[in-house]
Amino acid sequence: MSYRLDKDLALRERAQKVFPAGMYGHMSTTPLPDNYPQFIAKAEGGRIWGVDGYEYIDFLCAYGPNILGYKHPKVEAAVRRQLEQGDCTTGPSPLMLELAEKLVEKGDHANWSLLCKNGSDATNICLMVARAQTGRNTILMAEGTYHGTDPWSSWSKVGITDNARADIITFKYNDCDSLEQAVAKAGDDLAAIIVTPNLHEVFVPQQLVTQEFAQKARQLCNDKGAALILDDVRCSWRFSLGSTWQTLGVLPDLCAMGKTLGNGYALSAVTGNDRFRSGAAECFFTGSYWFSSAAFAASLATMEAIEEENAIERMETAGNQFRAGLADLANGYGFKLDQSGPVQMPLFLFEDDPEYLKGGFFCNEAVKNGVYLHPVHNMFICAEHDKDIVDALDRLDGAFKALKAQFGDG
Amino acid sequence: MSYRLDKDLALRERAQKVFPAGMYGHMSTTPLPDNYPQFIAKAEGGRIWGVDGYEYIDFLCAYGPNILGYKHPKVEAAVRRQLEQGDCTTGPSPLMLELAEKLVEKGDHANWSLLCKNGSDATNICLMVARAQTGRNTILMAEGTYHGTDPWSSWSKVGITDNARADIITFKYNDCDSLEQAVAKAGDDLAAIIVTPNLHEVFVPQQLVTQEFAQKARQLCNDKGAALILDDVRCSWRFSLGSTWQTLGVLPDLCAMGKTLGNGYALSAVTGNDRFRSGAAECFFTGSYWFSSAAFAASLATMEAIEEENAIERMETAGNQFRAGLADLANGYGFKLDQSGPVQMPLFLFEDDPEYLKGGFFCNEAVKNGVYLHPVHNMFICAEHDKDIVDALDRLDGAFKALKAQFGDG
Repeated sequence: MSYRLDKDLALRERAQKVFPAGMYGHMSTTPLPDNYPQFIAKAEGGRIWGVDGYEYIDFLCAYGPNILGYKHPKVEAAVRRQLEQGDCTTGPSPLMLELAEKLVEKGDHANWSLLCKNGSDATNICLMVARAQTGRNTILMAEGTYHGTDPWSSWSKVGITDNARADIITFKYNDCDSLEQAVAKAGDDLAAIIVTPNLHEVFVPQQLVTQEFAQKARQLCNDKGAALILDDVRCSWRFSLGSTWQTLGVLPDLCAMGKTLGNGYALSAVTGNDRFRSGAAECFFTGSYWFSSAAFAASLATMEAIEEENAIERMETAGNQFRAGLADLANGYGFKLDQSGPVQMPLFLFEDDPEYLKGGFFCNEAVKNGVYLHPVHNMFICAEHDKDIVDALDRLDGAFKALKAQFGDG
Repeated sequence: MSYRLDKDLALRERAQKVFPAGMYGHMSTTPLPDNYPQFIAKAEGGRIWGVDGYEYIDFLCAYGPNILGYKHPKVEAAVRRQLEQGDCTTGPSPLMLELAEKLVEKGDHANWSLLCKNGSDATNICLMVARAQTGRNTILMAEGTYHGTDPWSSWSKVGITDNARADIITFKYNDCDSLEQAVAKAGDDLAAIIVTPNLHEVFVPQQLVTQEFAQKARQLCNDKGAALILDDVRCSWRFSLGSTWQTLGVLPDLCAMGKTLGNGYALSAVTGNDRFRSGAAECFFTGSYWFSSAAFAASLATMEAIEEENAIERMETAGNQFRAGLADLANGYGFKLDQSGPVQMPLFLFEDDPEYLKGGFFCNEAVKNGVYLHPVHNMFICAEHDKDIVDALDRLDGAFKALKAQFGDG
């Protein structure tokens, strides 16, 4: 079977001229093996098509935004209806208010909401509100956590001044002692602890949060009068329409939400409680497109569809089916997988694969066979994947076969 | 004539519960007089309709994004075509590349481009790239300039740490001596001078840049090996499809573009020259929706329509007509206006109005008569306004009449 990315490669060559390094950000396929297409021509449900015409079952889901399935009819219809009225105008449509009311209704912690565009907008707003309310500066964040690419949080230090991180202290995720030490270090200046619902690092297994750690973070914030900020940008609406730690009974003061809120239409949000309302009211934040109404229409429709179509349960079922099927396939070929994270946000790493050679080889075979996986970054299951898992596992059999031919018996 | 905002007021009351301070950001009408509607139901061409059914000729144009006219047929058709294929997927469509190529073609300074969402994304990227390339930290910015609401640049200090501004030195706009002093103060650490094409402050007249000042900024950056960053977010494509200072023959190293690039669809961009390519290639920046293709389709269509429909000339003509008509009307009623800024981005302030009482009263009458102005913030002309100026001036006659009744002969 020939698999050729001629069109994609021609586009990439042109891209070398007009993008620094040929592409940038999390959607650059430069770090991925050769068979990954950079440019995508079409998307539908749980699948994408590259510019060379190949179809892929897509377990990245646009790195998260696709929660219901691409081009979900209800969401698309709602967007088109709103576009007929107007999108970015001199003021929001009433849909903005309806959406904020829904977010407040669904968030057990939430009394108010703010709507924005990037995930980073939402995490930045949370920091500003926490600082405004407490009158303090220091923020604690976990080592290795992704909170966006703004200077205070980016994993990269290139182009970033030391001062941008001067008010940040780090701790180890799921380590209560480490968190307590960081709180002690912040002293009287603790504005907030910001934490993701689980730890989703690249290259290493994900860590599910422990109940003990989540409660400890909550208690320390209570003790110190600081804000517990949940950075739910990557997890929003996959586990709950409120905040993700709602499922643990641990409520944040401020929650940064994103990615899935519009099933791909650009929207992020902050929800907060009344203790932080006046701080939020005193801050100024805005963006050129934050009041655009098509995204609000998309979000209301997405929320409704998640409920009507049992999307959360479907993602969990599909995720469990995928995880079990992968384990079976791997075992059958004599390989062992370390599968980690919530099943809706799966990551698998091959055991005894310190340089990710097996993972890279396998994923490169998988994409050639029509399954778009990621070797070292957590993936995402969408609701429509419940139609795709059997197909995907079937296609992956060939990738395991090739892996076995390359790496022997594991 | 009765003018009642019953529906709007009812929505605002609900909004008090779920938005801190009832609304936030630049689209909050809280600082505006009573007759301004907060919620907008519909938009078309140069006009908007509030939820109570009133039509307004809209000289805010969504605070900038509406450059061609709301719901421009060519842009809307391009967006719908792309939405049929996919928007936010696991990789951009080739339209992203086409757009970057067009931006590079149109920008006399530009060899590469990066696409993002907020205006602040673009200004932040410029700072990071300048710092990465030069290995220095200090950024010079003009007092009173708006570069977004991120901590380093926001006009508000609430929720913002001192460290966020530790690497910023300010200078006075259009003041070569002040700029030279700031450069001297930065010493060996000057990474960049960031400057807007003109100075658009609120509450005071706008300042057009002087040729001397623009050239001085360019020369100082050359001398020091620093980046000249043009923050074109508010001005993009109103004067040139390249950078705005192109019209002066002064080229930036990095240009932050925004607002108009998608005629309302969320998109901003950075264009840069080869001297800063490797710095840009080394930085990491990204956003959940930065690779969404409907906005690229919108932007390509917007750029084409601007050229095909002579949008830049039409905005200038309509802006001149509006400015002249306003002056005539004001004179006729015995008032003097201080009209400032480029005609495409007009601001008028009443003379002898230190507390903006005349301006506030006048704008409140104007909005009641169907003309949406701003008393203290620069406004925006779109291409479709060439059909609206006569109407607008006609409607404003009533506002001047009421102003005269209230304030006597000026």
